Amino acid sequence: MKINDNYLKLQDSYLFARIAQKVKEYTAANPGKDVIRLGIGDVTLPLVPAVIEAMRRAVSEMGGADTFRGYDDNHGYDFLKQAVCGYYAGKGVNLCAGEVFISDGAKSDLGNILDIFSADNSVLIPDPVYPVYVDTNIMAGRKIFYMNGNEGNGFLPLPDKNIRADIIYLCSPNNPTGAVYDRKQLEVWVKYALEHGAVLLFDSAYEIFVQDGRLPTSIYQIDGARKCAIEFCSLSKTAGFTGVRCGYTVVPHELIRNKTPLNRLWLRRQATKFNGVPYIVQRGAQAVFTDDGLTQIKSNIDYYLENARLIADTLAELGIWFTGGRNAPYIWLKCPDDRSSWEFFDYLLENAGIVGTPGAGFGANGEGFFRLTAFGSRKDVTAAMYRFRAIICNYLELFKKHT
Amino acid sequence: MKINDNYLKLQDSYLFARIAQKVKEYTAANPGKDVIRLGIGDVTLPLVPAVIEAMRRAVSEMGGADTFRGYDDNHGYDFLKQAVCGYYAGKGVNLCAGEVFISDGAKSDLGNILDIFSADNSVLIPDPVYPVYVDTNIMAGRKIFYMNGNEGNGFLPLPDKNIRADIIYLCSPNNPTGAVYDRKQLEVWVKYALEHGAVLLFDSAYEIFVQDGRLPTSIYQIDGARKCAIEFCSLSKTAGFTGVRCGYTVVPHELIRNKTPLNRLWLRRQATKFNGVPYIVQRGAQAVFTDDGLTQIKSNIDYYLENARLIADTLAELGIWFTGGRNAPYIWLKCPDDRSSWEFFDYLLENAGIVGTPGAGFGANGEGFFRLTAFGSRKDVTAAMYRFRAIICNYLELFKKHT
Repeated sequence: MKINDNYLKLQDSYLFARIAQKVKEYTAANPGKDVIRLGIGDVTLPLVPAVIEAMRRAVSEMGGADTFRGYDDNHGYDFLKQAVCGYYAGKGVNLCAGEVFISDGAKSDLGNILDIFSADNSVLIPDPVYPVYVDTNIMAGRKIFYMNGNEGNGFLPLPDKNIRADIIYLCSPNNPTGAVYDRKQLEVWVKYALEHGAVLLFDSAYEIFVQDGRLPTSIYQIDGARKCAIEFCSLSKTAGFTGVRCGYTVVPHELIRNKTPLNRLWLRRQATKFNGVPYIVQRGAQAVFTDDGLTQIKSNIDYYLENARLIADTLAELGIWFTGGRNAPYIWLKCPDDRSSWEFFDYLLENAGIVGTPGAGFGANGEGFFRLTAFGSRKDVTAAMYRFRAIICNYLELFKKHT
Repeated sequence: MKINDNYLKLQDSYLFARIAQKVKEYTAANPGKDVIRLGIGDVTLPLVPAVIEAMRRAVSEMGGADTFRGYDDNHGYDFLKQAVCGYYAGKGVNLCAGEVFISDGAKSDLGNILDIFSADNSVLIPDPVYPVYVDTNIMAGRKIFYMNGNEGNGFLPLPDKNIRADIIYLCSPNNPTGAVYDRKQLEVWVKYALEHGAVLLFDSAYEIFVQDGRLPTSIYQIDGARKCAIEFCSLSKTAGFTGVRCGYTVVPHELIRNKTPLNRLWLRRQATKFNGVPYIVQRGAQAVFTDDGLTQIKSNIDYYLENARLIADTLAELGIWFTGGRNAPYIWLKCPDDRSSWEFFDYLLENAGIVGTPGAGFGANGEGFFRLTAFGSRKDVTAAMYRFRAIICNYLELFKKHT
């Protein structure tokens, strides 16, 4: 009996544990001071009424002999797949229901999709990045290439002709940087993938935050993407479903490798290792895509975006370089005075009682950067920015670099 | 780019599709006749009131600013893990909450657990069997040994000293045979696993149906199992959760291979590729384990068991050999007159309008056997057995073997 020893190559993620420990120590040493958490990656607003009402009805159905539902044998009820297709039609993307797989969230499917690819494939992953892309490939023993996100490219790396990868991860709007690829940039990626027979794994979990109508919100808005891309989305941020668990994965019928439609492989994988999403949850998800649902979630998204704007405007005013915050719930800033991520974390916590996330936790290229998120309350964000402004002025002065 | 070509070695499961096609043709040819489905593997009774009430409350909580819950970062809320621990304490098994992982069903975890084992491991799988055990290992390219279930061993195979396997699947009560290992038999398996350093994957999804107090309902009722077994259970059949999706997987802290606790590997796997079970569902699951919940689900289980008894008694009366039906919702019968599974399927459908499942669909050793299930309505089961009795007498007479 051997374990999968690729697991032993994984780095334990101490990022959030280390943050928690530092906050605990600070709180113990400073009992009177309140701490504002702007590192939070989870939504805070409750589910909207349309979703609650739909789930309440579904719960009642499950208690009735004539309305009870057992196994969902179809990888999602047609009512929800049609709702997703309708949502995509609004983006100018035509999907058929058989291309939509209802999932329990983007994270599960982003990891599990790798089952259908050979372990020999090489993968290309941006750095900094959502750690799941890296870890799931280390678990499978795949060769990983990194593409550098940096100040120069606005954390939106483009293909390097010297690297040939089989599987490519793109996340736009990006976690952690909040940067969003424009149409031209995605066209470059699609062209590269088509030329090399690669598959793009496109994580669109934050698409709802895109406000600039010129920016793509689905990879399928790019010509040719149906032949080279799988798209993963989630209602976690779209509709506050982090504790409800529902998303969807799109595998177009034209996506064929080794003469095999990947849709068929993924169908086989899901039929064998997954039993679908709760009926109650699927009814809640359907409600998201109704007129009432969309209006109600827009109000929540606007709330988070206003938080993001407050943070972004403060940074702009202070002359601090950043990405995100306009079409994304994340703001990725360059630590003032070339400080390291953790130095800045300590400074911000100790002097302003603000908790953020050190960029180094998202990869080597995150060093020197820092993530703030828009998921807190307006009151907290406003108070935090008031403190931030004061402290940063001091900080810059301290290092004699105030401009 | 290469696909995982192990997928191309999978046999497409035409079993249920073929059954559906045959039923469709029969119905078209016999518009007046009604068909009774005793092949159904899904529950039919609605959720019990305690569960409905708990989920209704949880839905309301998700709509309130102060009671909303986002990510479940702990692989299950403690309230549910404690409830599971309490349920196991009732079986005389002590678990700690850290050994219990809340899942979205046994099927997912039975497939996904393989991630933590090397692809080089050999696996031992009973035949006949729930097809997921076989398919998930073919997907990973593992060497599979089969152990023969047959009339001689009552479809409860024991270890063969000539076969050395690293991973061993046991399902008791068994799907499809309904056979249940006794304590002595499981002791033999645990001893074998400990001697060979193998890991037992024990599927206890049907444990609630065990009525005979002498039969084990958890592998951990056997000494030594904590050092060699992972147990998978589900509320799908226990509480009618096939459309609600909740189960649990137990990985004891003493289970160590290559100096690595498997609990830690599974924790890492789940933290990376899974985001937990909906809060609403976990509250429903918690209600199953309350006094009210247990009383209410017992009434449903008793209903299914009475169906099973009606079927088993009919078979006994007709002198047909079978397993299951006493401590399981499945009845596995030997096709009269040595007919093949599909011949008997056709005969039963055409002459009695009864649909069952040909045993050949569960593996080579299933040929000549047939599965009936207890999940139908009492009315249907009673009518089916009335027809069955009549038709079998004719059938046996036809082949001049009436005893």
